Amino acid sequence: MDSKILQEVSCIRADGEVVATSERIIRETALTVLVDGRHFATAMILGALEKEFVIGHLYIQGRIRHAGDISSIEIEDQTVRVKLRPGLEQRALPAALTSGLKVRHEDVRRCVQAILTSPIFEETGAVHCAGLFREGRESVCIAEDLGRHNALDKVIGAGLLKDVDFADVVATSTGRQPAEMILKCLSAGIPIIATKGVPTSLGVELAEKAGITLVGMVKRNSMVVYSHSWRIL
Amino acid sequence: MDSKILQEVSCIRADGEVVATSERIIRETALTVLVDGRHFATAMILGALEKEFVIGHLYIQGRIRHAGDISSIEIEDQTVRVKLRPGLEQRALPAALTSGLKVRHEDVRRCVQAILTSPIFEETGAVHCAGLFREGRESVCIAEDLGRHNALDKVIGAGLLKDVDFADVVATSTGRQPAEMILKCLSAGIPIIATKGVPTSLGVELAEKAGITLVGMVKRNSMVVYSHSWRIL
Repeated sequence: MDSKILQEVSCIRADGEVVATSERIIRETALTVLVDGRHFATAMILGALEKEFVIGHLYIQGRIRHAGDISSIEIEDQTVRVKLRPGLEQRALPAALTSGLKVRHEDVRRCVQAILTSPIFEETGAVHCAGLFREGRESVCIAEDLGRHNALDKVIGAGLLKDVDFADVVATSTGRQPAEMILKCLSAGIPIIATKGVPTSLGVELAEKAGITLVGMVKRNSMVVYSHSWRIL
Repeated sequence: MDSKILQEVSCIRADGEVVATSERIIRETALTVLVDGRHFATAMILGALEKEFVIGHLYIQGRIRHAGDISSIEIEDQTVRVKLRPGLEQRALPAALTSGLKVRHEDVRRCVQAILTSPIFEETGAVHCAGLFREGRESVCIAEDLGRHNALDKVIGAGLLKDVDFADVVATSTGRQPAEMILKCLSAGIPIIATKGVPTSLGVELAEKAGITLVGMVKRNSMVVYSHSWRIL
């Protein structure tokens, strides 16, 4: 059975004997985003939470300050048409985050655990997840996508639609954290990001400079805090 | 001990008690590529096989037809300066591959197995690998990078430097195969790509149209062939 997210394809299974069969795989969609009639981006995404993805992406890119800066957003087929309030200026990247948020390490663990139970991941083994949690407790949004980057954009977009104060949230992600993921947190103003994966050297360097708490290797009984560990109690 | 690929960072390990420690993580490098003095790309890569990466990337992008189209290539710090032979025209993407290469499924399995034994992956759990194998047997190059895309560019660049006929090679990769990975194989003329991961729907669709044999879920005793299965014996 096809869905918006999964597609059934015919294939051959070879394991000693060769058998014609079918399998459900991730449906990859090319989403074109037009802002005030101009091409802004074409992204290969998993076709769910498209609106959240676009809003989060515009925010991360500094095009909007909050969801209210968007006058209208229409999604038709694989095209998103966004109209912005007139006269918006590009938002500058914060120099560094100064949020005083502190979170218990048990809560960090629970936030990471909460994104590791995706049924789509279970079936296909082929998506990344991201999550956003107020003060490391209350879930704002959990999203799946082909890549870590898109999934994080989606939950940030959901946070904007719910008017969440990003200074109070913990973001979680599956997989590696290179510098670009940390840059998204800096742009959004998210002070803590935790992942079951590991960061890269530039990821750690940027988190240190940006005042972001970067937590990696989150497992059942341990985690590694790479920067600003005072936020983890 | 630092290396070009790994960097030691200070961190806090929290597992009941909190311990200051250090850990070796992947060194992420921003590599700027200038072609004939103009900015061509800035890529976040793992700093090894940079020359292969740049040559592979230029080829995939249709800027060169073979390694001989490059007059000179200099790498200094994090900048690569490439000079191309004058008068080169953009290479068109092939419509579809017609290579008659056939490979035994045991060989496909061995080629995938060969890229899963990276010591850097073992230590950090944070790299992707790609490999290129003549007729599914002789290894041309195995490369690691932060992402699947860069790793594939690197082995394709190595293939060009060794003057390999891509119609005779099997490429292997760790992780998912979205449309963009298949597009790289089409551009290079590689008829078979095999991965331990799974493809996306657009990946399968493109492989079918492009005449490329796409093999996923390669395990010890089984594999799934999504397109042009006649090439797998």
